[in-house]
Amino acid sequence: MKFIEGGVCAAKGFTAGGVHCGIRKNKDKKDLSLILSEVPASCAAVYTTNLVQGAPILVDKRHLSDGIAQAIICNSGNANTCNADGIQVAEKMSQLTAQQLKIRTEDVVVASTGVIGQPLDITPIAEGMPSLAAALSKDGYKDATEGIMTTDTVPKIVAVECEIGGKTCRIGGIAKGSGMIHPNMATMLVFITSDVAIAPEMLQKALSGDIQSTFNMLSIDGDTSTNDTVVVMANGLAGNAVITEEGEDFTAFMQALNTVNVALCRMIAGDGEGATKLLECKLDGAADLKNARIAAKSVICSSLLKAAMFGADANWGRVMCAIGYSGADVDITKIDVAFRSKAGTIVVCQQGAGVPFSEEKAKEILLENEIEILVSCHAGDACATAWGCDLTYDYVKINGDYRT
Amino acid sequence: MKFIEGGVCAAKGFTAGGVHCGIRKNKDKKDLSLILSEVPASCAAVYTTNLVQGAPILVDKRHLSDGIAQAIICNSGNANTCNADGIQVAEKMSQLTAQQLKIRTEDVVVASTGVIGQPLDITPIAEGMPSLAAALSKDGYKDATEGIMTTDTVPKIVAVECEIGGKTCRIGGIAKGSGMIHPNMATMLVFITSDVAIAPEMLQKALSGDIQSTFNMLSIDGDTSTNDTVVVMANGLAGNAVITEEGEDFTAFMQALNTVNVALCRMIAGDGEGATKLLECKLDGAADLKNARIAAKSVICSSLLKAAMFGADANWGRVMCAIGYSGADVDITKIDVAFRSKAGTIVVCQQGAGVPFSEEKAKEILLENEIEILVSCHAGDACATAWGCDLTYDYVKINGDYRT
Repeated sequence: MKFIEGGVCAAKGFTAGGVHCGIRKNKDKKDLSLILSEVPASCAAVYTTNLVQGAPILVDKRHLSDGIAQAIICNSGNANTCNADGIQVAEKMSQLTAQQLKIRTEDVVVASTGVIGQPLDITPIAEGMPSLAAALSKDGYKDATEGIMTTDTVPKIVAVECEIGGKTCRIGGIAKGSGMIHPNMATMLVFITSDVAIAPEMLQKALSGDIQSTFNMLSIDGDTSTNDTVVVMANGLAGNAVITEEGEDFTAFMQALNTVNVALCRMIAGDGEGATKLLECKLDGAADLKNARIAAKSVICSSLLKAAMFGADANWGRVMCAIGYSGADVDITKIDVAFRSKAGTIVVCQQGAGVPFSEEKAKEILLENEIEILVSCHAGDACATAWGCDLTYDYVKINGDYRT
Repeated sequence: MKFIEGGVCAAKGFTAGGVHCGIRKNKDKKDLSLILSEVPASCAAVYTTNLVQGAPILVDKRHLSDGIAQAIICNSGNANTCNADGIQVAEKMSQLTAQQLKIRTEDVVVASTGVIGQPLDITPIAEGMPSLAAALSKDGYKDATEGIMTTDTVPKIVAVECEIGGKTCRIGGIAKGSGMIHPNMATMLVFITSDVAIAPEMLQKALSGDIQSTFNMLSIDGDTSTNDTVVVMANGLAGNAVITEEGEDFTAFMQALNTVNVALCRMIAGDGEGATKLLECKLDGAADLKNARIAAKSVICSSLLKAAMFGADANWGRVMCAIGYSGADVDITKIDVAFRSKAGTIVVCQQGAGVPFSEEKAKEILLENEIEILVSCHAGDACATAWGCDLTYDYVKINGDYRT
């Protein structure tokens, strides 16, 4: 497996584009994106577990009931959530896209991200549709990524090439997400394309399985969004024998999908609102996977630890505290904690109690922008990784006046 | 019932004091506090549910197994948690206190608050004990409060007078708590004294019942501390007939205790680390109490809402979002949301969708320093209140370099 260029256009038969249509006032910011497969594709999706769900999600669930899709349309600047006419608007977005592309309305996936509770005007979307369709190209993945960004500071793009069933296949993805990130089934918006041939039900199985160890282990601020969606389209143009059951090919696909998703998780966490550091909690030696995940995610979610990491303060007591209240069944007196980065590794806690360490060295390690928090439970073989970021002045600034 | 002066010294037979003994480097900051009842008192306590528990808690559970106590000793500057010799040190603190006061070691409640994972030196405590005992007085409640403060900016003191069984009784309390506040059985440190005559088991019943609607509905940063403790001592000197069962007197005591605890919750939330505003989420019309509490607390815990309140931004979508992911069983399409403060009330959401409102008026309301978030579920009769604070630059600043 190797990383390649191209994002959601890396796979055969996919084009993408993004334009400014006028949902956002700033004309320099693209606000409408489109991804198209030249043939109908197997499609799987997972959504937020928030009871408040964006209108697009309700429409997508209906459109994807047959496991087939051909295009994804997405706007930024407005979440189309908590609006009385939300479903009609989301359905209209699908219709406009289908008419423009001459495909079935039911094969359009629709998504929206931005402010909650402000009616989404369909007019700029209708007016922008022809130019959006005209912008579709193999190079359009960067514009499409830009069109879904909100408070993101960097585009999040990845693609890999791998061999499945003797054929070279590609999986690529783009993501947006910077605040309101604490996915619980899926993260904000992630669009993945592949030319692998795979049955819709196996694609859903692969996605639903993988997010448990990827997007569900990611948190920026503990707020599970109303619009979280991960969509994967696989159009089969790689020419491999269609994957219809578990086995070598399915495993190879799962590995490639996992590589794409982990890369996107790291990008999203590292670009968390106001973040200066990517935090990775790598926990091993837990009694079972469930406890490993609960404990690792609790560490990443602790506001106090996040603030300490911003200050490059090796305040390991906050790691122990977060494990202690996580609900995970662990023996606190066996836990070891260390911090690691490019600048080295430092052990700060053994068997649940502090050990002497150089504050100077710890500071040096924590001043890096990618920090690993290593936790060993010495209770079994299960391990888990969770991703997050530090809590900074800028997080407060961004969210103190996001809407007005 | 009326509010009176005196804090933990308001009740008959209680004295208190606080000194600087040397745990903290800053000589102007008191770091050791003592509360004494002239006779042994009924005593009830609740503690953190964090698996990592401060050594004092482990000692207190043993000391309070008979439901009787006479003194509370507490230091700030060091939590005595995650230390190999923690229990010996906590036991030694109790012994030194008992010897000085000529009471039983088992009748001493011990507490510590501050940094986790640094050994607590008993020497300054031993050396400070005589002057601490000498400082005990009816006026000492302010010094005692100061001695338990960490990042608190204001002392938290309350007392009420009420009539129980024909006798005038008093209940008073002090609290510390500013960060790592997300109690789940109890808040950081709350010491309450009363001269009511009440059996230990009824005192525990009153306390365990009340915290469900008071301290357990309080959150500053979502981090459940390792040292949360609420202790109530009632020495019976008011002369009322001993409360040994439910009934009128028990109800009167519960009401007074609730008044004290709600007052302390509001003080703790309003003085959250870096906070500029007290937030109260008052939720009504829920199907049952459990769902009411879950939803109200989720609103108060949302980092995004907390940041919006700091910015005086009426971003009600974040209220809906937090209710939606809370796990509470609610019908989102029936929910109304309003913001209220001294400057007025503004309705922002009805039946789950936004309604037009004056941004100017909303800003005026949210610029006040006590904000009520009113949520109506229209599903039943249950209601709940949760307390929190806004998320500010100063929270990040305080926690970015708390330890070093």
